[in-house]
Amino acid sequence: MYSINETHDIHLSSWVTSANQQGCDFGIQNLPFAIFRRKQSDEVFRGGVAIGDKIVDLKKLSEAHVLTDLAQKGAVACANSTLNEFMAMGKEAWGALRLALSKALTKGSKLESALKNCLVEQADAEYNLPCTIGDYTDFYTSIHHATSVGKLFRPDNPLLPNYKWIPIGYHGRASSIGVSGQNFHRPVSQTKAPDAEQPSVGPCKRLDHELELGIFMGSGNELGQSVPIEEAEAHIFGICLFNDWSARDIQAWEYQPLGPFLSKSFASTISPWIVTMEALAPYRAAFSHPADDPQPLAYLSSEQNSSQGAIDIDLEVLIQTQKMRENGQAPESIATSNFIHSYWTVAQLVAHHTVNGCNLRPGDLLGSGTQSGPEPGEGGSMLELSVGGKKTLTLSNGETRTFIEDGDSIFIRGWCANENAARIGFGEVVSTVLPAR
Amino acid sequence: MYSINETHDIHLSSWVTSANQQGCDFGIQNLPFAIFRRKQSDEVFRGGVAIGDKIVDLKKLSEAHVLTDLAQKGAVACANSTLNEFMAMGKEAWGALRLALSKALTKGSKLESALKNCLVEQADAEYNLPCTIGDYTDFYTSIHHATSVGKLFRPDNPLLPNYKWIPIGYHGRASSIGVSGQNFHRPVSQTKAPDAEQPSVGPCKRLDHELELGIFMGSGNELGQSVPIEEAEAHIFGICLFNDWSARDIQAWEYQPLGPFLSKSFASTISPWIVTMEALAPYRAAFSHPADDPQPLAYLSSEQNSSQGAIDIDLEVLIQTQKMRENGQAPESIATSNFIHSYWTVAQLVAHHTVNGCNLRPGDLLGSGTQSGPEPGEGGSMLELSVGGKKTLTLSNGETRTFIEDGDSIFIRGWCANENAARIGFGEVVSTVLPAR
Repeated sequence: MYSINETHDIHLSSWVTSANQQGCDFGIQNLPFAIFRRKQSDEVFRGGVAIGDKIVDLKKLSEAHVLTDLAQKGAVACANSTLNEFMAMGKEAWGALRLALSKALTKGSKLESALKNCLVEQADAEYNLPCTIGDYTDFYTSIHHATSVGKLFRPDNPLLPNYKWIPIGYHGRASSIGVSGQNFHRPVSQTKAPDAEQPSVGPCKRLDHELELGIFMGSGNELGQSVPIEEAEAHIFGICLFNDWSARDIQAWEYQPLGPFLSKSFASTISPWIVTMEALAPYRAAFSHPADDPQPLAYLSSEQNSSQGAIDIDLEVLIQTQKMRENGQAPESIATSNFIHSYWTVAQLVAHHTVNGCNLRPGDLLGSGTQSGPEPGEGGSMLELSVGGKKTLTLSNGETRTFIEDGDSIFIRGWCANENAARIGFGEVVSTVLPAR
Repeated sequence: MYSINETHDIHLSSWVTSANQQGCDFGIQNLPFAIFRRKQSDEVFRGGVAIGDKIVDLKKLSEAHVLTDLAQKGAVACANSTLNEFMAMGKEAWGALRLALSKALTKGSKLESALKNCLVEQADAEYNLPCTIGDYTDFYTSIHHATSVGKLFRPDNPLLPNYKWIPIGYHGRASSIGVSGQNFHRPVSQTKAPDAEQPSVGPCKRLDHELELGIFMGSGNELGQSVPIEEAEAHIFGICLFNDWSARDIQAWEYQPLGPFLSKSFASTISPWIVTMEALAPYRAAFSHPADDPQPLAYLSSEQNSSQGAIDIDLEVLIQTQKMRENGQAPESIATSNFIHSYWTVAQLVAHHTVNGCNLRPGDLLGSGTQSGPEPGEGGSMLELSVGGKKTLTLSNGETRTFIEDGDSIFIRGWCANENAARIGFGEVVSTVLPAR
């Protein structure tokens, strides 16, 4: 759907020299979008594109009138305080701005001096949500996560009969989604210990992260109009990192019969940078499950969907406890995974979501669900890593964890790399748990 | 929380004579808010207040500068195309505008001629959603609905153990909420017949209405800050009628383990008029369940909450089939109920929703859940009226129904009345099912 073109060329290099460094998340082949301003300033928030350790200020760039046609129109839309208008413009506009920026940032570009005027150091920036999120839907696409969690509740029958037919999803809370750096108080709510006579109220005792990707909708669809799977990817703007915080003890008591509620609505944190679907084109890879396991129903099935496959995004979760922070110790890896373990493609999520006529709007967010892999070190949540709280994780400084403690920061990082394409990264999302109020 | 004052006086009458007629929904004691414009015009949508068969155009009124202070500020906020800004202003502003309008519309007011200039016929108006709905949460407050539906799935154990402790709720889809008059196509999605080997895709076969009330949040709360039950009602702006359309066969196949999804996200219809919490003050009534059944946990419990009790709102569901419409036959009642059957008060819903720090924003919508009463004719959905499709309803023209057919219009009406207060009504919400696409 998004074809490989000159913007993906592994040999491209930028006059922004930091972009050319080995291991840089934001090389010239990436060009992800965010909403930013200078830290502690009263500047307006506006759109930016990352390049190396800098940001191209798209408001300033649009005012410089060095881009033309659709690329210029796109930059003007990105001068707003949210990306919704740009997201609504569609694939052609996203591609035009990407191509123009790729050319302007390439070594030797005639636009170098004009663009230099528009650069802001990432170190000096703070971020906002990239768009107004009208609705947030959380999916459940990792069959390994669904199986591991199912095992804790139903040892004999971990995977429910609908799992391989329906991309299971549920409506989430949009208001409590924050951008990386979101610190939140440990949630308080009702729980009931299995042996207690009645429930009680208090701080969550089984606080958990969820390693997810966030999929941002670009152009929407009208209520009553479904999006065919062949067209679904063209509606998707891009992907970010996403930590969908969860309170397992609250969830266990509240979720029957209508699903999770307060266990999910206290905080969900996204990375500031959205990597576009076009940037991700070189990293398509085979599914980690057999494609006919079973054959999906017609509305979830297309030649293209099968042949494009999954997206190979390496993922990592790291923890930095308060003690580690105080001792200047870097975050420590507790899990790795990959988006190829998703049972459903992003196109299938959109096709399913809209088959009933549900309207998706530009800026709507789809959570991938916890992206766990099949191996023990690939659990995307503490619930899996600690096997429901029964296994203790020992960190390198001797601290132990079964769930997340006050003062802990959780980082998620993600990147794509293969021999035919440049490495691109998603940056990171971090959030820190404060004590209950 | 909202005290009875001169605006509720049963003896008030208006110089808008239609407001004084017996059985009028919009007498001077009501003064509900909507967003409207003249039908098929290109006028901007703006706020209005109903009086008799007219609407006070609040944009025009704000421009006439006949109100003062907080009432004028409120009218200015209502000149917008959504009520969100007015909702955010809080209880004092809502009360000031209500009092000013009550005085200005009372027989003998010096403002009669100024106000006359601002009147639009309801018959000439069309409505929009009253506000931007950031998030929509659906609750499950009728214990009779929960029990009846539970019985269909679990005959021996209809009510789950958490029901009397937690106001059960789940996140809903905001994008597909429409205003009365919303016509929508029968949703298509995956279902699986109990005896089928595998699921299939097709139009919903068990389409259902849900008789609900919609509770609109006024002033919000910050993320991380819960709203104590004593303050909860002051955050609520008002209540409307709400039909939360449901596809029972889609729901049955998709809802495990994370709750309803596509079975709910194709259409939900609200009435245009929001009756304010202040207007509802005279209609507080005893709960229909014992208050200590069991004693709610502390955060859901207050002296005031117990003593104020429920809200006595009579509710009625009516059907008009295509044949009835073609024959000029009026809608026919299929169920009645009352909001006193809600197990939880609106204050308890807000206190529970925010106990974990979840932020509610002005204009957020809380669905009450299906408001069924204890008697057979008080089921708020076809699922209950037809006992899961096993009992056929025969209409007066001989047509039969177990679920909702193409061409059917479902109406919900609601009103409050008692011997000490004037009758006030909610108007109606109607939506019509079109054939699947």
